[in-house]
Amino acid sequence: MKPLLSEDFLLHNETARRLYHHYAADLPIIDYHCHLPPADIATNRRFLNITQIWLEGDHYKWRAMRAMGINEHYITGTAPDEEKFRMWAATVPHTLRNPLFHWTHLELQRYFGIHEMLSEKNADEIFSHCSGMLQKSSHSVHGLLRHMKVEMTGTTDDPTDDLKHHKTIAASNSEIKVIPSFRPDSVLATHDPIAFRTYTEKVAAASATTIKNYDDLLSALQNRIDFFHSTGCILSDHGLEYIPAPDENAETEAPKLFLKILNGQPLSHSEQGNLKFDLLLRLGKMYRAKGWTQQFHLGALRNTNPRMMRQLGANTGYDSIGDFQQAPGLSKLLGRLDETDELPKTILYNLNPADNELFASMAGNFNDGSI
Amino acid sequence: MKPLLSEDFLLHNETARRLYHHYAADLPIIDYHCHLPPADIATNRRFLNITQIWLEGDHYKWRAMRAMGINEHYITGTAPDEEKFRMWAATVPHTLRNPLFHWTHLELQRYFGIHEMLSEKNADEIFSHCSGMLQKSSHSVHGLLRHMKVEMTGTTDDPTDDLKHHKTIAASNSEIKVIPSFRPDSVLATHDPIAFRTYTEKVAAASATTIKNYDDLLSALQNRIDFFHSTGCILSDHGLEYIPAPDENAETEAPKLFLKILNGQPLSHSEQGNLKFDLLLRLGKMYRAKGWTQQFHLGALRNTNPRMMRQLGANTGYDSIGDFQQAPGLSKLLGRLDETDELPKTILYNLNPADNELFASMAGNFNDGSI
Amino acid sequence: MKPLLSEDFLLHNETARRLYHHYAADLPIIDYHCHLPPADIATNRRFLNITQIWLEGDHYKWRAMRAMGINEHYITGTAPDEEKFRMWAATVPHTLRNPLFHWTHLELQRYFGIHEMLSEKNADEIFSHCSGMLQKSSHSVHGLLRHMKVEMTGTTDDPTDDLKHHKTIAASNSEIKVIPSFRPDSVLATHDPIAFRTYTEKVAAASATTIKNYDDLLSALQNRIDFFHSTGCILSDHGLEYIPAPDENAETEAPKLFLKILNGQPLSHSEQGNLKFDLLLRLGKMYRAKGWTQQFHLGALRNTNPRMMRQLGANTGYDSIGDFQQAPGLSKLLGRLDETDELPKTILYNLNPADNELFASMAGNFNDGSI
Repeated sequence: MKPLLSEDFLLHNETARRLYHHYAADLPIIDYHCHLPPADIATNRRFLNITQIWLEGDHYKWRAMRAMGINEHYITGTAPDEEKFRMWAATVPHTLRNPLFHWTHLELQRYFGIHEMLSEKNADEIFSHCSGMLQKSSHSVHGLLRHMKVEMTGTTDDPTDDLKHHKTIAASNSEIKVIPSFRPDSVLATHDPIAFRTYTEKVAAASATTIKNYDDLLSALQNRIDFFHSTGCILSDHGLEYIPAPDENAETEAPKLFLKILNGQPLSHSEQGNLKFDLLLRLGKMYRAKGWTQQFHLGALRNTNPRMMRQLGANTGYDSIGDFQQAPGLSKLLGRLDETDELPKTILYNLNPADNELFASMAGNFNDGSI
Repeated sequence: MKPLLSEDFLLHNETARRLYHHYAADLPIIDYHCHLPPADIATNRRFLNITQIWLEGDHYKWRAMRAMGINEHYITGTAPDEEKFRMWAATVPHTLRNPLFHWTHLELQRYFGIHEMLSEKNADEIFSHCSGMLQKSSHSVHGLLRHMKVEMTGTTDDPTDDLKHHKTIAASNSEIKVIPSFRPDSVLATHDPIAFRTYTEKVAAASATTIKNYDDLLSALQNRIDFFHSTGCILSDHGLEYIPAPDENAETEAPKLFLKILNGQPLSHSEQGNLKFDLLLRLGKMYRAKGWTQQFHLGALRNTNPRMMRQLGANTGYDSIGDFQQAPGLSKLLGRLDETDELPKTILYNLNPADNELFASMAGNFNDGSI
Repeated sequence: MKPLLSEDFLLHNETARRLYHHYAADLPIIDYHCHLPPADIATNRRFLNITQIWLEGDHYKWRAMRAMGINEHYITGTAPDEEKFRMWAATVPHTLRNPLFHWTHLELQRYFGIHEMLSEKNADEIFSHCSGMLQKSSHSVHGLLRHMKVEMTGTTDDPTDDLKHHKTIAASNSEIKVIPSFRPDSVLATHDPIAFRTYTEKVAAASATTIKNYDDLLSALQNRIDFFHSTGCILSDHGLEYIPAPDENAETEAPKLFLKILNGQPLSHSEQGNLKFDLLLRLGKMYRAKGWTQQFHLGALRNTNPRMMRQLGANTGYDSIGDFQQAPGLSKLLGRLDETDELPKTILYNLNPADNELFASMAGNFNDGSI
């Protein structure tokens, strides 16, 4: 039977085919941004069935299922794994022209040797075939990573994390390098005094100190960066709607703004931006001192559905593209860091395709193409 | 002679041709958004000539004629219909690659059997041919709607309208269903105290009540929604630059803001947004209670030419694409309605093509793909 | 050898080829916006070598070289011209798909008869070949302009300029018409009291008057416009991030805001916008009275790299695309000028491609397609 996606999928001319098959295909994977759970790697998890590995946390698939009108019971609810898979299988043919369609079938081909289109008709058969294969050591987490020639993978970790799973992995002499990424989004929640205070206390506890003023916070963050660095971290990661453009006095105001929010007083919109900008500036300098690379994921509008937020929490499929003004603040941050020669290497991710040219042009403004 | 636009216009491959000719072509038209004047349908108007039906209110054509430098006398002025048509005909060849070119020739083909390109040369001949056909009962308003298999059409109506033409049409046992749409743009004019007050008085009169406070306004609007519902309305429609993102206290402030503007005091920019947002929220809940669908036309910058606004009024061809921030406010409105399970089915129209992906992603955040 | 870019470069079908070769190719060039230095034209400069004519001020090329990691010494530094050229030559093959690639090779073909790809390998040979040709009178500034059939070219000039080079050119009876453009960007620097005051003094000196209030400033600007007009100027040019949307009272406030900034007091963000808008309105009326055309370059975010700004100054390759809201302010300015029938012919340039449709639609709102 003719495979659904041929060996030359996406390779539209001879040059593309030659570049991919002769050069790229056999290269190892160096993946500096993923969301694999460190615990699954540390324990070399074996999945009971394909629902666990495919549908447990994949909110892209959930979103497609919801668009089909499928009841939440079969998505994030308590329905048996076989039934959840059947619902996903029934959704797949309707995802044509969405990357979910390609991802699904590339994975079926490469991990499970299946070249048919997944649908309601073959759902049960594919469920049992794949779930059987997932019991083999070739299909444990390590087995799958080895199969795809993953040499290094970077997880996403909270600054207060103790990185115990990373330590376990490092101690195991695994041939796959697993590196944490420092993602301090919670310390930038300047719009929410309660969350901000709670998280500040967590940072204090993690760095075994007390935080009474802005300098204390910066020291504690430096402490966490030192700790991450000691476990091999070489990357930070920030998820932000946009980088706020600061007022002139943002730097001198930041210590006062920190005390204000720590005392539970809400900051005005511009005060929030000023404190956030100054924190990003201070963090950027710390990253550069360590030789780290900083990453910015910009442009998402998160948690747009408050009812489902309460029911399921964040990262469950209710984010969308945002339309924030990106250039002035981003430009200011990079410029201020570069000004004192403290700009780390920087990776920009942009969600809104209308901003693609903007980001491409921003990237060319700083030294030696490092952005 | 080879027709200007063939039967396969826009149908670029075999699948497209099969889908259109075998499935779509013979389907009836269910048109839930149009601007046909209810009076013309109620009276089954016969047009004296093609200028009346084509150029009387079509500001897209006017705009093209103005770009050609044609004097307003031949556009909205008092020139004889023959001369206006001649000017339009001279404009048509220059509209190549603009939808006006396709619309013009598809209409000439389908209603009048004319397969030539309209131009100055054949203007008089086509004017007299078409104007002759328009005298036949096959080319009355009802005749044309029947010819295109229109089963249902939705007009756009002000909340204070008495819908007398809709009642006439309903009483006539016409086979074409004509349904009003509730378009309360004027009640959202929170930037203009005088217009706002005048319109509030109109709403009061239409609902035979007095409006002294916010609750009175909401009751009067509910009254009008009940009335529209009783005549078969199932849709509302809103034309807005963008949906404003509200402050936290928008809901509690709204009654005070209403009294302020009713007393002739201008609202600040953020107050305007808060009152507008709360009105949209309240209206959305009323729509949902009736099972209506709400429509939002977003992103137009209207009435940009004040000189022509004074001379000709609104909707005369002086609007353009706007670049407003759309995501935060729209997302908040849909989220707040969904939170209490009061989100009506919603149709979004977006004018700025740079926002296409944004709107597509927004639409996936709420229940069962209803947006 | 097959030329790198054939005669039919960019001409993808027969109609394109016919239009270009039969109609466009031999037309003279009327260039109403360029940055040729008037001094070079007045002195009919002969360039010592190709580095001088190609790399002396071309920050597009500099930017590409920096992205390659080339040291500033070879870009704007003191490296010998041969070495700078070698570095540029090594960069060229990597600019494939960037207009720099096309520009470079079209220029090598048309001015120097070279049809190879420039690279490190042939850098020295091409340097000496081209530099030799540049010694001939055919390759002086006048020679090159004649070769390209330039009939008219518009330079970009500060309102305080004495236009002495333009006078020299005019007096020389050259067959090439060289016209100044009035570019008053510095008078719109309402964000910077020191720069604003300094420039106001320059305007006063240039117009041999003193400027104590807003009327004085407007008179002095009128004086400069009269002077530019007397030397043949028919165009103004404005480079702006965006045109600010004014508050209702911008016009009455402007004189006070001018006194405030002249006294060294910084203006608030909205005050800056109001004064800038009113100046644009007043200038627009002056342009129209002279029959000039006004140009707006909108959407650039300038001087994003403060370190290099200090080192090299402006216009050295550190600008990028911006994402400013363009429609409301631009629309208001054009509308206000049109309202009193004082809208000059207007040319809009837009840097962010996401705004292309927006600008196209804005342009259709005013009389007879003159924008």
